[in-house]
Amino acid sequence: MKITFLGTSGTMPTVDRGPSAVAIIRKGELILFDCGEGTQQRMVKARLGFGRRMKIFVSHLHGDHILGLPGLLETMNLLNREHPLSIYGPKGILNFLNAIFHILGVPDFPLDVLEIAGSGVIYSDSEYRVEAIRANHEGESWSFALIEYPRPGRFHPEKAKELNIPRGPLWKRLQQGEPVMLGGKIFQPEGIVDAPRPGRKIVYSGDTSPNKALTELALEADVLIHEATFDDDMVDRAQRDGHSTATQAAEIAAAAKVDRLFLTHISSRYPSTESLLEKARKIFPMTFIAEDFMKIEIPLKS
Amino acid sequence: MKITFLGTSGTMPTVDRGPSAVAIIRKGELILFDCGEGTQQRMVKARLGFGRRMKIFVSHLHGDHILGLPGLLETMNLLNREHPLSIYGPKGILNFLNAIFHILGVPDFPLDVLEIAGSGVIYSDSEYRVEAIRANHEGESWSFALIEYPRPGRFHPEKAKELNIPRGPLWKRLQQGEPVMLGGKIFQPEGIVDAPRPGRKIVYSGDTSPNKALTELALEADVLIHEATFDDDMVDRAQRDGHSTATQAAEIAAAAKVDRLFLTHISSRYPSTESLLEKARKIFPMTFIAEDFMKIEIPLKS
Repeated sequence: MKITFLGTSGTMPTVDRGPSAVAIIRKGELILFDCGEGTQQRMVKARLGFGRRMKIFVSHLHGDHILGLPGLLETMNLLNREHPLSIYGPKGILNFLNAIFHILGVPDFPLDVLEIAGSGVIYSDSEYRVEAIRANHEGESWSFALIEYPRPGRFHPEKAKELNIPRGPLWKRLQQGEPVMLGGKIFQPEGIVDAPRPGRKIVYSGDTSPNKALTELALEADVLIHEATFDDDMVDRAQRDGHSTATQAAEIAAAAKVDRLFLTHISSRYPSTESLLEKARKIFPMTFIAEDFMKIEIPLKS
Repeated sequence: MKITFLGTSGTMPTVDRGPSAVAIIRKGELILFDCGEGTQQRMVKARLGFGRRMKIFVSHLHGDHILGLPGLLETMNLLNREHPLSIYGPKGILNFLNAIFHILGVPDFPLDVLEIAGSGVIYSDSEYRVEAIRANHEGESWSFALIEYPRPGRFHPEKAKELNIPRGPLWKRLQQGEPVMLGGKIFQPEGIVDAPRPGRKIVYSGDTSPNKALTELALEADVLIHEATFDDDMVDRAQRDGHSTATQAAEIAAAAKVDRLFLTHISSRYPSTESLLEKARKIFPMTFIAEDFMKIEIPLKS
């Protein structure tokens, strides 16, 4: 699993930072959090491709988080995309896309647009789920967590053979952590299969002021991507506008005991992010400033 | 007068080329032809500023020519723009912007959106006019010419003094090329004022297949910015899709006797533009390939 930051600016882009977008590549699938203006061109530069299996999660309907959608969909259409695409976002995203399609035409590939009905699991398959919780920001705004399900523990065939459990469906059930019955005797998976290996968790704040529910959602996440629009001296403005300071983001990362914190949505007033990083690291040393085109690996947990 | 190319890609952006936008700075005013996705960020990089007097001319309602408008207007609004802004474009541009404003909010600064009613002069002040003609492209599409009015010729005060014409309103009228009457005698401006100096002309094709009317509009232009989506081998496809080859653009430049031709809207299939340039220069040697952030000066004519 790899994260590529495609847009790390605040509301207004700067020379080096485009509006919000974070791409996660997981087993070939592209999971996009937000799609600010210019995302498609930054996808070209990052060589992510337009034909992959893909889902887009939109945190809220502000321009700097959605204005890359129309162009991205149009480019996919021109490239004769065949894979379906699902877009999850707040109420109103259907109207926004319909208005755009009315002018630019409707894409030919299968497109699902799903308006988030409420907090909870908004997507799930056999390998991971995406949860949404309300963010503290103007209008209907969401934070997201991508949570992998635990992977089965390592299976030890020699142990199964010792116990005369025959290779086949019984091995499979044991590997899935379930007990099996053989000749009237029950065999527990313990000793034959190691404990399940935890899945990974990536949490994306969207735009928000500090949010206790987000701290809970981010508990022990591998990566927390949290907005840090402002420096400490603008904490009142941050609260008023539904944003966070770098310090506040670090406090959430510390409380949630995450592995790594990446600060994004940096206001254009900070051409240097030194002060933001310094303050955040005092509270949470594993803090990094996200930069456009920065790539990070999220290793499997053992 | 200076031209900055802000987007020179075809429909799809590439690593180096963003979607269509051309900025002309004239006496501090910014005149923008088209506004593809990412234009605002490229304006930041080109240090053009968001507070200037400004007009935007939109050639047609395809995504690669308009999807930068919403973000640009939003950024201007956030920066508390005060100058009014006028946008001229094809029928439907009002609906497009209204749909966007419905989601993102209406800008607070004075915004005029004018749908082009037909070919002819669509803007005029005391110094220049903008003419629009129909382009050969899908839907309602326009090409534009920015045409400066001639400037008054150089005034020779010593000649006026020799003729005993007193400094004051009579000098002013002579400078404007008008005869004056003094003591019952008529003085013609010839000999006192040189001939008017021609204004400059910049012509922008938008998306179009070769167009005779555009050749006429571009007659003796200082700069013709013409689309060159394709190379010669795709001339049929170009015709079908309402586009031009580099060769065709050069033929128009030659027929119109322009000073310089800049090719833009280059398809993403040409990472190297060598072949396009070579073919065009065979027909019109003063051809150049426009590149994002390229700046060119248009000197005053003597």
